[in-house]
Amino acid sequence: MQLLKVDTLEQAREKLIQAVGSDWLKVCEVAVEDARDKVLAEDIYGVQDIPEFRRSMVDGYAVQAKDTMGASDSIPVFLEVIEDVAIGTKAQSMIVPGTCAYVPTGGMLPEGADSCVMVEYCEQFDKTHIAVSQPVSPGRHIVDIGEDSKKGALIFKKGRRLRPQEVGVLAAEGLTKVKVYAPLSVFVISTGDELVTPGEELPIGKIYDINTQALTALARKHGFFISGTKTVPDVYEALRGAIEEAQKISDIVVISGGSSKGKKDITAQLIDELSEPGVFTHGLALKPGKPTILGMDKKSHTLMVGLPGHPVAAMAVFEMLPVWLKKELEGETKKLLLPAVLDGNVPGTPGRKMLLFVELTRSEDGYQARPIFGKSGLMSTMTRADGYAVVDLNQEGLKSGDKIWVAQL
Amino acid sequence: MQLLKVDTLEQAREKLIQAVGSDWLKVCEVAVEDARDKVLAEDIYGVQDIPEFRRSMVDGYAVQAKDTMGASDSIPVFLEVIEDVAIGTKAQSMIVPGTCAYVPTGGMLPEGADSCVMVEYCEQFDKTHIAVSQPVSPGRHIVDIGEDSKKGALIFKKGRRLRPQEVGVLAAEGLTKVKVYAPLSVFVISTGDELVTPGEELPIGKIYDINTQALTALARKHGFFISGTKTVPDVYEALRGAIEEAQKISDIVVISGGSSKGKKDITAQLIDELSEPGVFTHGLALKPGKPTILGMDKKSHTLMVGLPGHPVAAMAVFEMLPVWLKKELEGETKKLLLPAVLDGNVPGTPGRKMLLFVELTRSEDGYQARPIFGKSGLMSTMTRADGYAVVDLNQEGLKSGDKIWVAQL
Repeated sequence: MQLLKVDTLEQAREKLIQAVGSDWLKVCEVAVEDARDKVLAEDIYGVQDIPEFRRSMVDGYAVQAKDTMGASDSIPVFLEVIEDVAIGTKAQSMIVPGTCAYVPTGGMLPEGADSCVMVEYCEQFDKTHIAVSQPVSPGRHIVDIGEDSKKGALIFKKGRRLRPQEVGVLAAEGLTKVKVYAPLSVFVISTGDELVTPGEELPIGKIYDINTQALTALARKHGFFISGTKTVPDVYEALRGAIEEAQKISDIVVISGGSSKGKKDITAQLIDELSEPGVFTHGLALKPGKPTILGMDKKSHTLMVGLPGHPVAAMAVFEMLPVWLKKELEGETKKLLLPAVLDGNVPGTPGRKMLLFVELTRSEDGYQARPIFGKSGLMSTMTRADGYAVVDLNQEGLKSGDKIWVAQL
Repeated sequence: MQLLKVDTLEQAREKLIQAVGSDWLKVCEVAVEDARDKVLAEDIYGVQDIPEFRRSMVDGYAVQAKDTMGASDSIPVFLEVIEDVAIGTKAQSMIVPGTCAYVPTGGMLPEGADSCVMVEYCEQFDKTHIAVSQPVSPGRHIVDIGEDSKKGALIFKKGRRLRPQEVGVLAAEGLTKVKVYAPLSVFVISTGDELVTPGEELPIGKIYDINTQALTALARKHGFFISGTKTVPDVYEALRGAIEEAQKISDIVVISGGSSKGKKDITAQLIDELSEPGVFTHGLALKPGKPTILGMDKKSHTLMVGLPGHPVAAMAVFEMLPVWLKKELEGETKKLLLPAVLDGNVPGTPGRKMLLFVELTRSEDGYQARPIFGKSGLMSTMTRADGYAVVDLNQEGLKSGDKIWVAQL
């Protein structure tokens, strides 16, 4: 392994995209009811016009609008009712001047009609006639064929995340299955002689393993599939065995821990040994997140990510690299960040980007963002945070009153 | 059933809270790894100090800070190394003036030491001594006992939604189980003679059932459990049977459809017949969402919600009432809305609140929100929307340039 200089976030991301190649994401077909929050891997075209027939939006009478011209309470227009259209059935009649048909909300308009008069403005006059007391204009209270969407039209582009309303549209098209990106599988390895699994007794000098739970939860939140977790001591053979096992069944292996010098070397060495062509990023110009190691094994198509040991840094890097990569590959582009005004100064860290954790308070004008500082090992910095901004600090840092864009946590 | 006047959104919400009572939400215990996105039903207090021992944040030497005073490259300070503390083990020595101990990142500081010098500023001098070339101040590069959180301190309040970082803190405390609110179960009934299940053939005059899929997805998004779904024709007996079946196994029964006059009556009648003491809200001053019916059956503890038939209106009311109710009962208070400037006028609807769907575009200053207008039956209004604002329109409506707060969809 050659010694590499620290990468900027942009450089590491560029290398990631190159390393995983264009066919890393797999496509799968899921039932529409399981498609929520997945990302489309195909363009969706309209299967039919929606609606396929002209629908009434009200309970009323389908008419020719020109028949109702000038109608009022005092001088109503009388129309012959020639059909009572039941919901869900084909209208049979042909509306000609002087005639109309009853149509319920959602019902089909007969041929010849161009609008609907609400029942509220109609009165039964005799057995076969109603009196209409309000005029309507053509197109009033109806939905035209294809007005919601057209047969053959592009409904959703590949790369679209499916929210409940998109699921509804897929149902409206009559679709039952849809091609989406298969979840990437992540294996979470935590290393450290000091780690104890929660629930067990905690001898002095040791700490509970936070990263397994925190990274698993974070990965699931972003739609990854957890292929396994393992906590291993700082022993070359143990870590090697865990990585090899994980590689076989995972798209991504994350290894957190190994933050002290000797251990860092083991993680880096193993990522290098077990990936072909080896480590491509060794160190990231990101605060927190410096001790990040990236390698891609072309044989098993496994991305290997050495994360910092500190939980906050590990989560930050997981969000900035694997999560970013997933969204980038899936083609999700729109991300809604919150605009906020910084309420406090942030000292500069030349040459590094910083993940600035902030607490947001809302005023009439918008959000104030109070920076949360804390030693990077403290989880409380992240539980107090509502979000984070990725800021370029340069020499000067940021000043109170500066505008930032905050990603919600 | 007495005739009721239309409720405002606030009135309907007030009645909902009254109707379900204080013991409607159930509490369950889940494994910490399954706790993400659930809401705490108990306060969490610190089980132990975190950390329980003074930890080093760097690879370095634990020292008494005053020993390093004045240290420099040209005049280093010489200290005797009396211990090499291994990670995860109890430090054994007592640092006295003139001595130090090697401690790796995350390792335990020996008694007597008050700070750490990074290895970068230390050089091996002879077998037992190092030369320190930089001074440190007391507390430097160490995390004190309880600095992240203290034993017995309130860590998280009941009502807190657990994000990955909160899950991490629960693990840090050594917890394996946690009490959260059990998901409310929702049964989705869609009524309509015109409805065809997606995948089947679509005769003219009929449409595919959108609401079952859209409402199921929406409910799942907000953490509800789906106890069942059923599509039924507009027949009193069929709908009655479906509701009775649903009541037995659900906290909430939503019935969508029945938007034409005759059908509305059946839904309202059945909610009234099958709830004790009957319908309490019949009509909502919300656009879209007017034909909303609410009843609570005290015997089965089932909330019955008659939703509008139009998918957009049905989803809007589900979000404004059942979802709101769930969050209110769980005690989730903080909701981050996006501030935006309206880009277009919105006509007034006196006496009604409106769910205004908007498309957001980001400029340097913040977001512009372009109103999406469309007949309420069209799903495309909602798939084009990035979010919605709940606005009081009064007489005047809203003007381009007005400030609104947008909930993300």
